[in-house]
Amino acid sequence: MLKFNEQALLENMNGALSLRPKINEVVDKINAEGYSNVCWLGIGGTYASAMQAVIHMKEKSAIETFYQNAAEYVVTGNKRITSKTLVVISSVSGSTEEIVAAVKKLEKVHATILGFIDNENAPLASMVDYRISYPTDEQLKFFMVGDRLMNLVGEFPDYEDFYKELDTHFAEDIVAVEKKADDFALKFAEKHHEDDIHYFVGAGNQWGATYSYAMCYWEEQHWLKTKSIEAAEFFHGMFEIVERDTPVTVYVGEDTQRPLSERVANFLPQICGNYTIIDSKEYDLPGISEKYRGTLSPFVFHAINNRIDAHIEYINRHPMDIRRYYRQLKY
Amino acid sequence: MLKFNEQALLENMNGALSLRPKINEVVDKINAEGYSNVCWLGIGGTYASAMQAVIHMKEKSAIETFYQNAAEYVVTGNKRITSKTLVVISSVSGSTEEIVAAVKKLEKVHATILGFIDNENAPLASMVDYRISYPTDEQLKFFMVGDRLMNLVGEFPDYEDFYKELDTHFAEDIVAVEKKADDFALKFAEKHHEDDIHYFVGAGNQWGATYSYAMCYWEEQHWLKTKSIEAAEFFHGMFEIVERDTPVTVYVGEDTQRPLSERVANFLPQICGNYTIIDSKEYDLPGISEKYRGTLSPFVFHAINNRIDAHIEYINRHPMDIRRYYRQLKY
Repeated sequence: MLKFNEQALLENMNGALSLRPKINEVVDKINAEGYSNVCWLGIGGTYASAMQAVIHMKEKSAIETFYQNAAEYVVTGNKRITSKTLVVISSVSGSTEEIVAAVKKLEKVHATILGFIDNENAPLASMVDYRISYPTDEQLKFFMVGDRLMNLVGEFPDYEDFYKELDTHFAEDIVAVEKKADDFALKFAEKHHEDDIHYFVGAGNQWGATYSYAMCYWEEQHWLKTKSIEAAEFFHGMFEIVERDTPVTVYVGEDTQRPLSERVANFLPQICGNYTIIDSKEYDLPGISEKYRGTLSPFVFHAINNRIDAHIEYINRHPMDIRRYYRQLKY
Repeated sequence: MLKFNEQALLENMNGALSLRPKINEVVDKINAEGYSNVCWLGIGGTYASAMQAVIHMKEKSAIETFYQNAAEYVVTGNKRITSKTLVVISSVSGSTEEIVAAVKKLEKVHATILGFIDNENAPLASMVDYRISYPTDEQLKFFMVGDRLMNLVGEFPDYEDFYKELDTHFAEDIVAVEKKADDFALKFAEKHHEDDIHYFVGAGNQWGATYSYAMCYWEEQHWLKTKSIEAAEFFHGMFEIVERDTPVTVYVGEDTQRPLSERVANFLPQICGNYTIIDSKEYDLPGISEKYRGTLSPFVFHAINNRIDAHIEYINRHPMDIRRYYRQLKY
């Protein structure tokens, strides 16, 4: 399989899952000290992960939790963020300009900052109250924080059982998803690698990932035009431009918002002959209970998208690492 | 001027502004009874207005306020919405399926619902706790609610002064903006009425309107492809697909997020030869104090967009009232 390292994938996921005691040590302390609300602050890809974390918690939680764009925080502020707020951030480089500026501003209001800063020597590494450094699996790290917060206030009684299943089976299951998805992904890439514009539709805990996949992968890394849209919004304007040949992909996950994606998937064939439905239900997750599958759909889609990316990169001979503008020009 | 009725425009705006005592009667009562947070619930265009209302309040307020997609509320719920929540909705038809379903669910948690339901005989009209029926100017109605809420908790001490200026000058000022913008709008429409895809960039209190203008006007009413993007996010993926001939329009308003739009506007000429900057500063608002202009930028842009729409509609001979799918097919 193209650009596929089974061993590395297994190690990455199991490594991320094994951060949980470390994460819980921090979260338990913050919970014991008391907090009023939880802010997920990001920009670009991390903004998308922040959206996902909020929707993930909304499924179960009455905790006040929201996402905040870092650049917007710098200019507009947010009076809901106070010294009693837990702010969670993530940064691979640890030097993202807008995040650094936002964290400086957060320090002035004395919010508590938990940072997943992959580069231990980056500026952000020393600016946060609690730092955890581990590459890859941002969503998983965010979900582990949210899940522990909910568990501590009694909103996630199955917490131990859920993570027992993940620790035992999840990494292998995701490897199996990538393997199973590879044929589909090749065909999809062959069909869509030159699309003028590709539409991606997502809902629920897959919406942030859909926004991110369209923008941070197809636009940023493949230089292909995309538009992403929330499934619920599809029927309120956007669908008027869909015609026979418009390429539309719908992610149908298994969380509570599945009916919203299903509605798009069921309607599309009436007006479009160039659609793709990617349904997480078609992928087994051995050892994972049915009731937890909704939470895990984004990881299934992520694995499928990885395979699509590998094939588009190869077909287009466009290495995903190159950028023409990002950090190349001044802006 | 094409499709321009000065008298009707003046009457609409002044009529909306004169709703204020009626709005305040409701808001003052809700405030006196006590509320814990404010939810702006919508879908499509009203979801966009909800986003705008939240950003508008964030500029000044520590009140917990958030927007909620109606369809998502129906399936996922939101535990922050309780019997102590004020929910604000708006609906022209009063029959939007997702809003009706959401309001039915809201009734079960006994949230207080203030509805701007234009059609007095529609299903929603009798389902809300407080109803105000007046056509047009949704944003203005939302802002009047938010402003009064903030005023009542001491966050908007200039409230009376601000609305005195609006009551006296705003409608005439907006008429003057439409007149001034018409030449520009004709040239813009002539250049862009056949774009394969048009990019719209907005920030702050113009972001919701940018999302809505792209989706509910160009896509839904002109059947032209668009993508809208928050100015802060532009640099985190999307801009990699911008080339010499990519049509990009940036709204540069005067609220706190002006620097975010300016950043895009300043950068674009390096990589793009087909951009348009629409800056609210270029439009006078006689009688309005400088410090209030940021709040009013979306109305300036709305007036300019109206003129663009009139010209695109005529050039394309595509009446804006027609829909091919919306409420035409089952979905």
